[in-house]
Amino acid sequence: MDPFEIEILAEPELDDPVLVEGLPGVGHVGKLAAEHVLEELDSTLVARVYSTHFPPQVTVEDGTAELAHAEFHAVETEDGSDLITLTGDHQAQDNEGHYGLTDTFLDVADRLGVQRVFALGGVPTGELIEEYDVLGAATTDELVDELESAGVEFREDEPAGGIVGVSGLLLGLSGRRDLPAACLMGETSGYLVDPKSAQAVLEILQDVIGFEVDFASLEERADEMEEVVRKIQEMEGGGPAASEEDLRYIG
Amino acid sequence: MDPFEIEILAEPELDDPVLVEGLPGVGHVGKLAAEHVLEELDSTLVARVYSTHFPPQVTVEDGTAELAHAEFHAVETEDGSDLITLTGDHQAQDNEGHYGLTDTFLDVADRLGVQRVFALGGVPTGELIEEYDVLGAATTDELVDELESAGVEFREDEPAGGIVGVSGLLLGLSGRRDLPAACLMGETSGYLVDPKSAQAVLEILQDVIGFEVDFASLEERADEMEEVVRKIQEMEGGGPAASEEDLRYIG
Amino acid sequence: MDPFEIEILAEPELDDPVLVEGLPGVGHVGKLAAEHVLEELDSTLVARVYSTHFPPQVTVEDGTAELAHAEFHAVETEDGSDLITLTGDHQAQDNEGHYGLTDTFLDVADRLGVQRVFALGGVPTGELIEEYDVLGAATTDELVDELESAGVEFREDEPAGGIVGVSGLLLGLSGRRDLPAACLMGETSGYLVDPKSAQAVLEILQDVIGFEVDFASLEERADEMEEVVRKIQEMEGGGPAASEEDLRYIG
Amino acid sequence: MDPFEIEILAEPELDDPVLVEGLPGVGHVGKLAAEHVLEELDSTLVARVYSTHFPPQVTVEDGTAELAHAEFHAVETEDGSDLITLTGDHQAQDNEGHYGLTDTFLDVADRLGVQRVFALGGVPTGELIEEYDVLGAATTDELVDELESAGVEFREDEPAGGIVGVSGLLLGLSGRRDLPAACLMGETSGYLVDPKSAQAVLEILQDVIGFEVDFASLEERADEMEEVVRKIQEMEGGGPAASEEDLRYIG
Repeated sequence: MDPFEIEILAEPELDDPVLVEGLPGVGHVGKLAAEHVLEELDSTLVARVYSTHFPPQVTVEDGTAELAHAEFHAVETEDGSDLITLTGDHQAQDNEGHYGLTDTFLDVADRLGVQRVFALGGVPTGELIEEYDVLGAATTDELVDELESAGVEFREDEPAGGIVGVSGLLLGLSGRRDLPAACLMGETSGYLVDPKSAQAVLEILQDVIGFEVDFASLEERADEMEEVVRKIQEMEGGGPAASEEDLRYIG
Repeated sequence: MDPFEIEILAEPELDDPVLVEGLPGVGHVGKLAAEHVLEELDSTLVARVYSTHFPPQVTVEDGTAELAHAEFHAVETEDGSDLITLTGDHQAQDNEGHYGLTDTFLDVADRLGVQRVFALGGVPTGELIEEYDVLGAATTDELVDELESAGVEFREDEPAGGIVGVSGLLLGLSGRRDLPAACLMGETSGYLVDPKSAQAVLEILQDVIGFEVDFASLEERADEMEEVVRKIQEMEGGGPAASEEDLRYIG
Repeated sequence: MDPFEIEILAEPELDDPVLVEGLPGVGHVGKLAAEHVLEELDSTLVARVYSTHFPPQVTVEDGTAELAHAEFHAVETEDGSDLITLTGDHQAQDNEGHYGLTDTFLDVADRLGVQRVFALGGVPTGELIEEYDVLGAATTDELVDELESAGVEFREDEPAGGIVGVSGLLLGLSGRRDLPAACLMGETSGYLVDPKSAQAVLEILQDVIGFEVDFASLEERADEMEEVVRKIQEMEGGGPAASEEDLRYIG
Repeated sequence: MDPFEIEILAEPELDDPVLVEGLPGVGHVGKLAAEHVLEELDSTLVARVYSTHFPPQVTVEDGTAELAHAEFHAVETEDGSDLITLTGDHQAQDNEGHYGLTDTFLDVADRLGVQRVFALGGVPTGELIEEYDVLGAATTDELVDELESAGVEFREDEPAGGIVGVSGLLLGLSGRRDLPAACLMGETSGYLVDPKSAQAVLEILQDVIGFEVDFASLEERADEMEEVVRKIQEMEGGGPAASEEDLRYIG
């Protein structure tokens, strides 16, 4: 097996397609957002990527085993650009894997005619969020302007540590290919899976790309998470400040 | 030395051979099972695999040193398919090694004409086992059906974390080669080397492939292990629940 | 992306150019020194080096993302040799990366006609420094003599553990290319970013190469650091000896 | 720089040369023994090996920097086989490095006409040693017999964990090249640098190969070490059993 292998399963005709990445990360914001699009809209599996830099692992569902991989789905929208989602259960487990996988993802995007890249993720604030702002970073001034008009915040020196992993490299390596790319990062405590942050990110993305999804199931999941938080706080017998420290960090 | 080196020592004529993998893992279930076959039946050493992804180590027996390797033995059975066992003392020590070694093992299997792959292992339950169920995962629906008839349990979402290491990758990479493969996982506490779980796995395998081994020596070893558990429990002055935590995890 | 990629942005005519490396390290001495040169003198960005051995990361400034890299600037001096600075925010994250990046840096240096290499860094003493000595190491006896005349100390068996990372390898690999190279190491506590140590190193370098920079801004920064130390000592209610242990090590 | 680089500096005519490896390891037994040969007998530096799998480091002596490497010296003996020593300050830092370096060392040995390989090392017993036995492992029965006659102990299942690192791989990879190889392991507590164990190993080697060195300086160093042990025991106010635990393990 080669370090990075592409399996193309379908090559649909797409209008001005946009790559939407949502792999695991802080608060699972990007993953929740991209998977919500796949749950709400019709999609076609178009490609899989396998790699020796993924964990040496198969997932088992109903007795059938599947090798660790990332996958691309095409989602045709009515008015705006069509979408290519990039989802999966794993990130690479070493630096060379991160670089090589991101390059491979962009090769697939290139083959599918992708015109722009949106990496979705979360940015940890360390405290429970009231107002879900979405931070941005992009490779071109035009994209910065466009996203700013859509309500994305561009703050000096944020995120402080830069952007790490596939989301960061999608920007860095797209920039070197002259492919416009942006990262949309929903603010999230960093302690919990955060469907509200995912919704905030998706609302921006809908607006920028031009498509619509229903948020009912994501809101339901957010209510469940709030119930969890409430219970933890009760058990602690304290307010949010006290209990917050006891929530598990989900990175 | 190349990262993965194959040494073919014999190429016997085999009937419809089946690969039976038993490398070290949870409860040493797979290793015990595959090695028990070699102890009970006549076998020929047919191939060795060396790798720079194995530990940099030689074993010493009676003063003679042998480089870390995995080995394949051919076992001719009277009625059913012949067996090719894959055994050894090591797994790879990094992701690329796991993928590369499994690919190399399948290259050897291909060269020896292997028609089906059975990876043997244990699935940790965290508690001492009364009834030794055997869980399954496979790459084709036919294999799932066949194994289910033989008493293997296929449970939704189990094993929860998927299957890791060579056993998992044998399924994942066989699937990509269109070689039918299954993993048989004996339930085991995960705290101890578990000959009973190995026997449960072997009884299924015997039935599916069509061969027979005597279990006396494995049962003897199981009795010894139970004696060990009993002594630990006495020292603790407590019941199984109390002492269990003090048993060493064997992964 | 290749493991090591060179992007040449300009190829100015330079007089007898000298490479001056200042990547992150003990007390950030080398980085402060090389960056101070770029702040004080006119410079041209001449090359960037990207690598899959850098962290998988982009930095974000005013919303715009940039892939992790090291960069070379040309600084023309009036009388002495021209300078090529090598700066950046990262070192490689594994052994092969360290060797490969240093080799790549020397390939760039070679292409830009570099005649001599000066690696700048700090050597930790474990205690706050009164007199900022500069230790040296070099690849040729001529360089040792020249630097000794300029006030650099060459001490038997110092630094005790040798020189690690890019600074060390620049000496080791330059030596194998017959390119004269030296490392100038400012003594520093090792606990704090140390602008005074950087100044001591730069004063030597000015003298040896023949250029001049103003130190006002570096002195200001040194005053700020001393203020920080003073406050920590007050909080501790103790003298330097007591508080020193509480300063954070910056490596 | 290639992952493994050989620099040949001299190609002397040698009689039936034997490789004697003494890189860092348990109790520094092998290193002490091989370096003692170089201190006592005339030798010529014949080759250096550099590797990107060594630490990214230069050593500095009297201001001059040298890249991490291993080195081979030729030692001509009067009667017996001539010696090629392999010494250095580092082992590789990852599995592929261990395998690749050992292969490279054997390539050098091959080029220098080496007929047999002796890897020197220590085997930790966990307790202070009274009688310094030397354990052996070898690749051929002839070598086992020859070494046994010289007083080397070959014990069933010892060393229990096999032999790890370059010494182990020299046996494993020599075996695959049909080059007879043995490992001589001096028993040592494992807690301290052990010149007495080094002497025990050298006395066997002298006898087997046919050369002689003076042991005065090694005995002096052993006396110094015993003085260290005595002082630690006094400080502990206890006998050997008590203080032993407080000695630092040197691996």
